Amino acid sequence: MANSKYAYVRNFELPDPLLPGTFLVFRLDGHSFHRFSDAHEFAKPNDVRALQLMDHAARDTMELYPDIVLAFGDFLLKKSTSIYNRRQSKIVSTLTSQFTSSYVFYWPRYFPNTPLQYPPSFDGRIVLYPTEKVVTDYFAWRQADTHINNLYNTTFWALVQQGGQTPAEAHATLRGTFSKDKNEILFSRFNINYNTIDSRFRKGSILVREEVDDDVLPLDVKIQASGEHVPQHSGSPSRAKSPRSGAIDAPGTSVPAPVLVSSDP
Amino acid sequence: MANSKYAYVRNFELPDPLLPGTFLVFRLDGHSFHRFSDAHEFAKPNDVRALQLMDHAARDTMELYPDIVLAFGDFLLKKSTSIYNRRQSKIVSTLTSQFTSSYVFYWPRYFPNTPLQYPPSFDGRIVLYPTEKVVTDYFAWRQADTHINNLYNTTFWALVQQGGQTPAEAHATLRGTFSKDKNEILFSRFNINYNTIDSRFRKGSILVREEVDDDVLPLDVKIQASGEHVPQHSGSPSRAKSPRSGAIDAPGTSVPAPVLVSSDP
Amino acid sequence: MANSKYAYVRNFELPDPLLPGTFLVFRLDGHSFHRFSDAHEFAKPNDVRALQLMDHAARDTMELYPDIVLAFGDFLLKKSTSIYNRRQSKIVSTLTSQFTSSYVFYWPRYFPNTPLQYPPSFDGRIVLYPTEKVVTDYFAWRQADTHINNLYNTTFWALVQQGGQTPAEAHATLRGTFSKDKNEILFSRFNINYNTIDSRFRKGSILVREEVDDDVLPLDVKIQASGEHVPQHSGSPSRAKSPRSGAIDAPGTSVPAPVLVSSDP
Amino acid sequence: MANSKYAYVRNFELPDPLLPGTFLVFRLDGHSFHRFSDAHEFAKPNDVRALQLMDHAARDTMELYPDIVLAFGDFLLKKSTSIYNRRQSKIVSTLTSQFTSSYVFYWPRYFPNTPLQYPPSFDGRIVLYPTEKVVTDYFAWRQADTHINNLYNTTFWALVQQGGQTPAEAHATLRGTFSKDKNEILFSRFNINYNTIDSRFRKGSILVREEVDDDVLPLDVKIQASGEHVPQHSGSPSRAKSPRSGAIDAPGTSVPAPVLVSSDP
Repeated sequence: MANSKYAYVRNFELPDPLLPGTFLVFRLDGHSFHRFSDAHEFAKPNDVRALQLMDHAARDTMELYPDIVLAFGDFLLKKSTSIYNRRQSKIVSTLTSQFTSSYVFYWPRYFPNTPLQYPPSFDGRIVLYPTEKVVTDYFAWRQADTHINNLYNTTFWALVQQGGQTPAEAHATLRGTFSKDKNEILFSRFNINYNTIDSRFRKGSILVREEVDDDVLPLDVKIQASGEHVPQHSGSPSRAKSPRSGAIDAPGTSVPAPVLVSSDP
Repeated sequence: MANSKYAYVRNFELPDPLLPGTFLVFRLDGHSFHRFSDAHEFAKPNDVRALQLMDHAARDTMELYPDIVLAFGDFLLKKSTSIYNRRQSKIVSTLTSQFTSSYVFYWPRYFPNTPLQYPPSFDGRIVLYPTEKVVTDYFAWRQADTHINNLYNTTFWALVQQGGQTPAEAHATLRGTFSKDKNEILFSRFNINYNTIDSRFRKGSILVREEVDDDVLPLDVKIQASGEHVPQHSGSPSRAKSPRSGAIDAPGTSVPAPVLVSSDP
Repeated sequence: MANSKYAYVRNFELPDPLLPGTFLVFRLDGHSFHRFSDAHEFAKPNDVRALQLMDHAARDTMELYPDIVLAFGDFLLKKSTSIYNRRQSKIVSTLTSQFTSSYVFYWPRYFPNTPLQYPPSFDGRIVLYPTEKVVTDYFAWRQADTHINNLYNTTFWALVQQGGQTPAEAHATLRGTFSKDKNEILFSRFNINYNTIDSRFRKGSILVREEVDDDVLPLDVKIQASGEHVPQHSGSPSRAKSPRSGAIDAPGTSVPAPVLVSSDP
Repeated sequence: MANSKYAYVRNFELPDPLLPGTFLVFRLDGHSFHRFSDAHEFAKPNDVRALQLMDHAARDTMELYPDIVLAFGDFLLKKSTSIYNRRQSKIVSTLTSQFTSSYVFYWPRYFPNTPLQYPPSFDGRIVLYPTEKVVTDYFAWRQADTHINNLYNTTFWALVQQGGQTPAEAHATLRGTFSKDKNEILFSRFNINYNTIDSRFRKGSILVREEVDDDVLPLDVKIQASGEHVPQHSGSPSRAKSPRSGAIDAPGTSVPAPVLVSSDP
């Protein structure tokens, strides 16, 4: 065969299996999203449409990959997963690609009057966590981070949008402040009670697969997050007709739909 | 800080640098593209629109990442590249994401009457090649593969579309045949001279960055490939206005546009 | 500095940290030990001197590396260990080297009349286990293996040494037999009650560090192994004078001596 | 089989192949050799016996592993080597173990009146270099380092041993000095012409395998090193009788003996 004298090049492909019996956290970040949000005039401090689009892409990815049991910005795959034989590059590239594809595909649904100006990209990586405790601490860390960032951003943009400060002045105002100081600024200057802000913003959205499995963390009781409780996807007629949904709903695969859960009343 | 007791979870993120001084080949594959091509009724054996869209996404990715010096289905990054400090997951996920995003974004331009039915995905991986010789052999291997596959597919679909054979019959006809047999079938039964078929199909498209650099392979003389010779991108007005193109064209970055080259007269 | 133009070669040294929070099992194998045991006329099926030398080298290694909590052929390091910053090559090469060095160094003590004919070597590797359950299963697997091998070897050598069979005949006699068959052969033909054989041979020797630590497996109740119960090392005057033992016994390092434990009365 | 329910633990052993087509440099360091050299009263600045023992252990290792083509403190394996299928841990632990074993085994030959007080250990690691140029630069870097260190040590110990300075004073004397200053101190104060010192000390010993192979660097012309030119090993009767040497000298394996080469007249 003409091809055979070159076939040795395949030997340079090395295996990259991830350690079995460990939880996989797939971390995802937008590439240059500061510029992207400016170019598309995202509302500040939070753009509901952009968050809903993110949730949609996350739900889409979760539906296609049943071993993802939780999404909270990042994705948690159950420790017993044998997806793609736990090959690292295959998993990280496929999940990043799927999320990206869904994000671009569903953009017009959430931004009907804002055409996408250029193709956005994301990057991903996988971190292994050996025990439930560390995974839980990981998501607690991420959630504390969400809280800290959102309180900062909310106060910052109140100072700019309603207080008339320049961004530089607003940063200066906030320098060295604690959470209680920011709460006080919001309340006394702008009559905003931070605790009444939509928990989607304060705590982030979490998607949890509805299933009972001793391989899965009882995360719904451990992680306090927020969002709508409606499993929007399963009622989505356009998806129900798509070839992939059909495949997934086929007998034998039985993938419970992920749902948005909220810890708030 | 509330966050600090959880910060230890960051210790689980391990470094994944790629060996310096080696060529990076970024390999890219479509996920379930057999189904995808059926769902969108791609022409057989080759769909020009689909190939042009692939070329566009590849050119887009190449423009954004100047260290990519060649694209031929897969992408070659020069061996001195320090992109993302050569972190494997970062590179593989970002490039896969960018290609995917461009593919979905530009779909309507190439398939104006065929709406995308669902978000397609790709997977990527990186293979390191230590020397010019192995890289050249790698692309020679890929190109020989392209030739073998295209000759098979061209003959197969001629038997089905023009010869009235079922797919099973066509596979049976081709079993055990050599290249000269397939050429003979094409010529004697269907009056097709394989050598006059568009070289884009026979040899694949190659994008080579126009630059002179001793770190870069003189691949134009080593790899025989095909495509249009027009640097379409630089004349594309819609891209010229995009924020990213602007950034790339800014003084100081100086990224020569990749061009499609052809080895045919 | 004359050296600086070459200093870039250090960039080729890549990090190789092991995942935190996982148990390290350091596996050790003799290199060509079949030949080695022939060359030094080890007694069959078990040579007490050779086993004692192995135990001595293991105890030596354990004394020097306090994070080793158990040795049973292989070595278990506690999951919180930060030895050499968990750098894989450093750990695997150092432990293999130390064991090898002790083995050669103490050879004359156990083989006073058999000079070592050439320097023997070993190879090592590290396997990560994320949970106590998997570690325990690992050692259970190893111990079951020890039992199976020893019963086979004991019966094989009885057939050869006392039964007058050739090795080929002995293998043929044992083909397809179960444990009860081998026990029956030993008892009926050679009047050997396998259960009364020294448990060191039947179950292997295990060294467990005497300490209480919630990071450490309660392996003494989980793994059934055998050996002498005397903490020989701490009474060893020659070691007590060695520089290293001195260092280890220095205030602040507090390394409890490993002891041989036995599950037998 | 009793063992089968535990056999899953083998899945935790992950492959660790090294990239093909790259040179392997096996780096080796003594563990706590400052203390070791004090405990055995090594001569300063260089102990000929200790260096000869090192050379012997290196030559031994090189004889047993024909793919080692050069030893200069570290070991170079040819880029086409398929030793142990290029498994990293296997290679690094085996080579470290062999060197260690030979070092302890041959100690009495070089230190007949100085009993080894405790088993010394070494650690190793492997660095991949993709091209001849980088490998050559690596060894140039190592050799420059040897020169710098030896000049410093020679001057330091002259100041202490012949000049009556304390170690602290000697370090202070040398602070900020260049090579020519140290040469001057040696010559003017102690009448030592540094260039006439044994090149073994000034440049280090290098062992190069005598073979012609296009896979191997023409290192003899590129690296300037020093040592005796006598292939001591092949004349060593005790080795010639050893089982391993016998195996290596067997027809078909044809392993040329490494020799010490010198660039000095």
